[in-house]
Amino acid sequence: MQTVIPSLGVGRFPSPLRMNSVSGDRIGNFVSDDIRIRYQVEEGGLEPASDLRFEKAGPRAQLFFDPGRTRAAIVTCGGLCPGLNTVIRSAFLELHHNYGVRNVLGLRYGYQGLIDGLAEPPITLTPDMVDDIHEHGGTMLGSSRGNQPVPAMVDFLVAHQIDILLTVGGDGTQRGAHEIAVEVSRRGLPIAIVGIPKTIDNDIQYVSRTFGFATAIDKAREVLAAAHAEAKGYRNGVALVRLMGRDSGFIAAGATVASQEVNFTLIPEIPLRLNGERGFLACLRQRIISREHAVVVVAEGAGQDLLQGEVARDASGNVLHKDIGTFLRDRIVADFKEHGIPLSMKYIDPSYIIRAVPANSDDSMLCDAYARQAVHAAMAGKTDLLIGHRGESFMHVPIAMATASRKTVSPESLLWNSVIATTGQPLLFE
Amino acid sequence: MQTVIPSLGVGRFPSPLRMNSVSGDRIGNFVSDDIRIRYQVEEGGLEPASDLRFEKAGPRAQLFFDPGRTRAAIVTCGGLCPGLNTVIRSAFLELHHNYGVRNVLGLRYGYQGLIDGLAEPPITLTPDMVDDIHEHGGTMLGSSRGNQPVPAMVDFLVAHQIDILLTVGGDGTQRGAHEIAVEVSRRGLPIAIVGIPKTIDNDIQYVSRTFGFATAIDKAREVLAAAHAEAKGYRNGVALVRLMGRDSGFIAAGATVASQEVNFTLIPEIPLRLNGERGFLACLRQRIISREHAVVVVAEGAGQDLLQGEVARDASGNVLHKDIGTFLRDRIVADFKEHGIPLSMKYIDPSYIIRAVPANSDDSMLCDAYARQAVHAAMAGKTDLLIGHRGESFMHVPIAMATASRKTVSPESLLWNSVIATTGQPLLFE
Amino acid sequence: MQTVIPSLGVGRFPSPLRMNSVSGDRIGNFVSDDIRIRYQVEEGGLEPASDLRFEKAGPRAQLFFDPGRTRAAIVTCGGLCPGLNTVIRSAFLELHHNYGVRNVLGLRYGYQGLIDGLAEPPITLTPDMVDDIHEHGGTMLGSSRGNQPVPAMVDFLVAHQIDILLTVGGDGTQRGAHEIAVEVSRRGLPIAIVGIPKTIDNDIQYVSRTFGFATAIDKAREVLAAAHAEAKGYRNGVALVRLMGRDSGFIAAGATVASQEVNFTLIPEIPLRLNGERGFLACLRQRIISREHAVVVVAEGAGQDLLQGEVARDASGNVLHKDIGTFLRDRIVADFKEHGIPLSMKYIDPSYIIRAVPANSDDSMLCDAYARQAVHAAMAGKTDLLIGHRGESFMHVPIAMATASRKTVSPESLLWNSVIATTGQPLLFE
Amino acid sequence: MQTVIPSLGVGRFPSPLRMNSVSGDRIGNFVSDDIRIRYQVEEGGLEPASDLRFEKAGPRAQLFFDPGRTRAAIVTCGGLCPGLNTVIRSAFLELHHNYGVRNVLGLRYGYQGLIDGLAEPPITLTPDMVDDIHEHGGTMLGSSRGNQPVPAMVDFLVAHQIDILLTVGGDGTQRGAHEIAVEVSRRGLPIAIVGIPKTIDNDIQYVSRTFGFATAIDKAREVLAAAHAEAKGYRNGVALVRLMGRDSGFIAAGATVASQEVNFTLIPEIPLRLNGERGFLACLRQRIISREHAVVVVAEGAGQDLLQGEVARDASGNVLHKDIGTFLRDRIVADFKEHGIPLSMKYIDPSYIIRAVPANSDDSMLCDAYARQAVHAAMAGKTDLLIGHRGESFMHVPIAMATASRKTVSPESLLWNSVIATTGQPLLFE
Repeated sequence: MQTVIPSLGVGRFPSPLRMNSVSGDRIGNFVSDDIRIRYQVEEGGLEPASDLRFEKAGPRAQLFFDPGRTRAAIVTCGGLCPGLNTVIRSAFLELHHNYGVRNVLGLRYGYQGLIDGLAEPPITLTPDMVDDIHEHGGTMLGSSRGNQPVPAMVDFLVAHQIDILLTVGGDGTQRGAHEIAVEVSRRGLPIAIVGIPKTIDNDIQYVSRTFGFATAIDKAREVLAAAHAEAKGYRNGVALVRLMGRDSGFIAAGATVASQEVNFTLIPEIPLRLNGERGFLACLRQRIISREHAVVVVAEGAGQDLLQGEVARDASGNVLHKDIGTFLRDRIVADFKEHGIPLSMKYIDPSYIIRAVPANSDDSMLCDAYARQAVHAAMAGKTDLLIGHRGESFMHVPIAMATASRKTVSPESLLWNSVIATTGQPLLFE
Repeated sequence: MQTVIPSLGVGRFPSPLRMNSVSGDRIGNFVSDDIRIRYQVEEGGLEPASDLRFEKAGPRAQLFFDPGRTRAAIVTCGGLCPGLNTVIRSAFLELHHNYGVRNVLGLRYGYQGLIDGLAEPPITLTPDMVDDIHEHGGTMLGSSRGNQPVPAMVDFLVAHQIDILLTVGGDGTQRGAHEIAVEVSRRGLPIAIVGIPKTIDNDIQYVSRTFGFATAIDKAREVLAAAHAEAKGYRNGVALVRLMGRDSGFIAAGATVASQEVNFTLIPEIPLRLNGERGFLACLRQRIISREHAVVVVAEGAGQDLLQGEVARDASGNVLHKDIGTFLRDRIVADFKEHGIPLSMKYIDPSYIIRAVPANSDDSMLCDAYARQAVHAAMAGKTDLLIGHRGESFMHVPIAMATASRKTVSPESLLWNSVIATTGQPLLFE
Repeated sequence: MQTVIPSLGVGRFPSPLRMNSVSGDRIGNFVSDDIRIRYQVEEGGLEPASDLRFEKAGPRAQLFFDPGRTRAAIVTCGGLCPGLNTVIRSAFLELHHNYGVRNVLGLRYGYQGLIDGLAEPPITLTPDMVDDIHEHGGTMLGSSRGNQPVPAMVDFLVAHQIDILLTVGGDGTQRGAHEIAVEVSRRGLPIAIVGIPKTIDNDIQYVSRTFGFATAIDKAREVLAAAHAEAKGYRNGVALVRLMGRDSGFIAAGATVASQEVNFTLIPEIPLRLNGERGFLACLRQRIISREHAVVVVAEGAGQDLLQGEVARDASGNVLHKDIGTFLRDRIVADFKEHGIPLSMKYIDPSYIIRAVPANSDDSMLCDAYARQAVHAAMAGKTDLLIGHRGESFMHVPIAMATASRKTVSPESLLWNSVIATTGQPLLFE
Repeated sequence: MQTVIPSLGVGRFPSPLRMNSVSGDRIGNFVSDDIRIRYQVEEGGLEPASDLRFEKAGPRAQLFFDPGRTRAAIVTCGGLCPGLNTVIRSAFLELHHNYGVRNVLGLRYGYQGLIDGLAEPPITLTPDMVDDIHEHGGTMLGSSRGNQPVPAMVDFLVAHQIDILLTVGGDGTQRGAHEIAVEVSRRGLPIAIVGIPKTIDNDIQYVSRTFGFATAIDKAREVLAAAHAEAKGYRNGVALVRLMGRDSGFIAAGATVASQEVNFTLIPEIPLRLNGERGFLACLRQRIISREHAVVVVAEGAGQDLLQGEVARDASGNVLHKDIGTFLRDRIVADFKEHGIPLSMKYIDPSYIIRAVPANSDDSMLCDAYARQAVHAAMAGKTDLLIGHRGESFMHVPIAMATASRKTVSPESLLWNSVIATTGQPLLFE
């Protein structure tokens, strides 16, 4: 299967990049539209054979937009993620220094910034403004959650004469970007919409690693080291750490393997049963009895079925939010009490500490690459795509395809088997 | 006033340390019992004149204990604190390598380790065991909260022929150490009890800086940087961070000055009024209206009077713990809702993340010094004291004196004025 | 082309791992020998089409070695690299806990440890020994450079009844491992030799990323931040940083992209011309005149042709080592002097600081995977291979194939183009 | 002895700070000129009794300068040091926000910025400019070494109508500041010159800890951890680390105690003898023979007498700089060769890596305090002083007094005895 990327039209302007199409002359090469990245690299395995191929990302020799007359805009949406500022910076610098695009706008506070009067007006980015933003967590443009009315956002693009819109965000953001692209196309406008995948949960299809994920695991590992010290510091010490991961356990699993100090890792992809002889609580009791301490990691999306009907109210009768972290903590405490086993319980919820930090080196390189590939695609007039990643390759993925489903941790994957190998936990709590 | 340190008797054994009592020969000096540290260094100020003086800590030329026949023991109590392992290690190495004490016991899990049969039996420390423990958070000996029956603990010291007990802990631990020392004295036993002050809150009298405090501030500052990114990343973003400090706001104040990103710092020493024209909530609203984001730090002991009667119950009717952090979060959310001001609220409680880490360099040096000074005092037969710290000097402080009251942040101190200067917050919420 | 991995014989023992060969049951899968990893994923590009395929790495259902009777050994060779201890630890834990191999030897000081009487005798590893080694830089086994006589090393394997030898090292080490495998095969011995690629320079063929590389870049980036502060802190400040990379500029290029603060990056793969109108010195002068500061990175292997005949001698007439770093520093100083341009030159050679640190999270996960894959291969009786890596896949690569040439930075690659994009430096100094 | 601080005249303007002179009302207090800090706190010791007292630093109730009409300037001189930007920022913010001084100039590139036409012209600082500079190493103003002609610098102050000059720098810088103050006084100008002590070597008299020192030790400790891994990673591994400290061994000693991994620490204050039975080389050989590895720290100023006549020349006959680090390395290598002992020598010179980083938390708090105290002193019309530090107190020290001699590590001090205790090295190499 060959995926098709919509194009605004043929390239009419020669690229100003210092590249050519000659191999072997020590000068970088433009990428032809004909190059494909084969998605399935494994042959003969248990998964069905697939001939899925994506267009290779990279600078094109011919541009659809005339750099000197192009207006580009960048928007960052959703939750913070390490590397947002690096993406903004590299996209701006590629447009400004390498393509010579003079007008690059920063839209404020996510999609709210595409509605006039809702958030602050756009700012025109300059090299000074972005000089050292990559050393800071967060996003210099601000963010917001949720989409805005699509026609109004397209009106905004028209009103501000924006030719290129780079949307940095996750699932929901990219679905919004796709709707914008559809509306733009419906109106016959020559505006390129290119998505840069952002999700700290690393759960976007056809994106092997989103930026910020490695940094999140670095920080989570620090938290697990502290949890380990707390668990070992007291008799029958249990340290329970809640990590991000609403639908996918990548952070929980990755941090477990990186830290090597976790004894139980609970993720949304594996059903969580608490009670019974082979349930989680019995396993935890057994571990405490034999080893006197345990570190437990729970992804925020794990065991959601257990939370049904768990409602707490404050003095005024207001419903208090219950999450799997505090729920599990309370259940462990009750269970040990019931069994008469002393317990020293420590609950840790690092939350924003993990996501509001600057990108580490690996993520910085990834941010830089995503941002520049997105600029290349947009300048070539490609649209309604996001930059995908597979192995060492970047590629163009139709947004609708990338957002059709979420990537999850397969219990039969190398990653999860590494978790099983390092924790020694049961395959299933059943 | 001259403080008096109890002594088990005159020194009868020459110290094996490579020192002498000659000044100017490039060889370290033994410290005479006659040297005093003057506590008040400021003259002519607003505080009443004091002639309080403490005995200077340091190695004595004559020892009460014969190193070759001495049995020493170390116990760590209470909450984890950065540097516990460094203290254990340096105390052991000073005893083992420098004094030649062959038997150094590590007591397990705090004062529980002084009750036979309650926790694991003591371990005999070796250089291999402590080799790299200083690179890890927590305590290799384990800890527990609370004291144990004093007579039973003294029985334990006798049964295990322990000559020296080093108690690493805070307020409560040292009060327990004092009671042990009293009982030891009542029985006429030649056992030295020497306290090493440990409290991440830095609230022990006559101890200008406890170990672990600087590290805690380092970590808290990282959290505040993340909080700042979250606050700035959203319109009307408020990031509320709860930091340790049950009775004293040293961590909250120190982290505020170190980070320079905080707009409101709330500590136990300053009354917190929420409502009213000049109350905290009105100030916060004003800040958000004019600057669109704010970082708020609240010490866990702040505003305790506000929590009266705030009781929440879960579905089963059990009381849920309410703390000032979540209480304040809920009040801010309600207040902004009431005033129709949009709000992006982020609540961060780093809790154990701050205390279960290894000591930074400053704290490592401090741990090393506290531990070695404690060993010197004990080998000289001094007892019922803890190692105090003032400026660049270490000194012997009677435990009862150090635990008579807590050290708090004076609202008129340099530290608090630095907080006021950097946050620009009102002097008082009234 | 299908690569062929030598096998000691058919698997006769069922694997004790908690896996099966069923897809979709949430239980991890054994890997069949028939699964292949296609090496070339790009189609239609400038490089010639290749059908190179490798055997997929992973746990086999049938083992050649009976776990309960197997003796395995691990050796670490060459320069230090972040993650060595993690590799040792995960390989041991996989053998010990998951396969139930009771005898795992740690050979001391590289291949010297395979010569009786040369280095210390092997140690029998235990869980306690490896408990927290992954938190430390270096290698708990020690290392050494260079190979030892192959027949003597094979004699050692026989004498110590070693069934499995895991060799952790670079190019030279793996060539040694291949020679051992050849000799083992010549003697008809049932000993598996499996290599784990280790090179901080990341220059091994068919290994997309060696462990330790990401950590090295993290550390190098810190150094570049300091270099940037030095360069900007003085008028006409030039900070010159020498980084590792004897034959390949991966660290220099990666650190440049990660830091975004570098103005010139010099690597072995790109010829370095100093003089002339478009030579490096003229470019640097121009940059200083227009921007007043510059950060320059030079890989240790860059510009080697320039060093010919550059010999310095000390007072006794001994030859002093000249390297490209100090050579370049001296040439820049002389050039600016000659042109009458004031200069503040800072030279930084972080050397070992970058390689003797513990692995970051990304590398930790990589180390864990390499180590476990190597164990799987060896237990299945595969030999004379090293664990390769491509995208998200691990695979078996014949050692001779991996060591036939070195991987280098292609001037036409994405990585180098990112360097050009971020530095803005000339494509070539000519 | 009472030290006397020159004053430009009586305070005529009430301070706008939110303070008063009432104790116990929870509002910060102005500091009276009559308060003194007693310098010697120890009584009865070996050092001669001293009644030296300094004026206490802090905000005065009456100001000499009218804030609304004051022009202040900040200059940073000499080598980089962690915290320079924090000092600039806090001084500016105190002047701007708290005193309401509208004109605060940043002078560029050290004292060169006080000579018109030599460096760039001064910049007028704004809150935006300094917003996040404290998160960066280096100095936003730039620096330079050496002084400039004093009359010309005073002419500059006059020409730019500067009322207050804050000089951030070490020994030489402050001597320059003193000369400026003398010339200002000679001309009868109402200009306040206030020094903020800066030296990473921590060697200024009456300043117990200069800012940047704690950070430098943090970074040095990281380097020592790497050195330790290198030393242990090879048979007979010696890792030699050169640290800063031209005249004083504070960094070398502090890093040794903080790291606990050093076996020999060589500082300028202790004579270094290499040869002979009890010389350093013999001790090192003995250590290697018994323990097989060693970490050696040498301060750059150690053993200077040994370097006499050690001259190396390059191919062109130019003298190559020889320093104690490379000298010692070569001597160790030669000595082991001569004695036929195998050696794995690693030499590490972290140089700028240690000083061009942002301040850690402790230093940040210190920077903030130094900067604000300097502003208070200057606004009150005090001049020719630098801010000293003793224990928890800040005080006014006449510059001439502070620069009359350097602070050094006393071999009989607690610090050096901690070094001896942790390294176990001989008291003297003799």
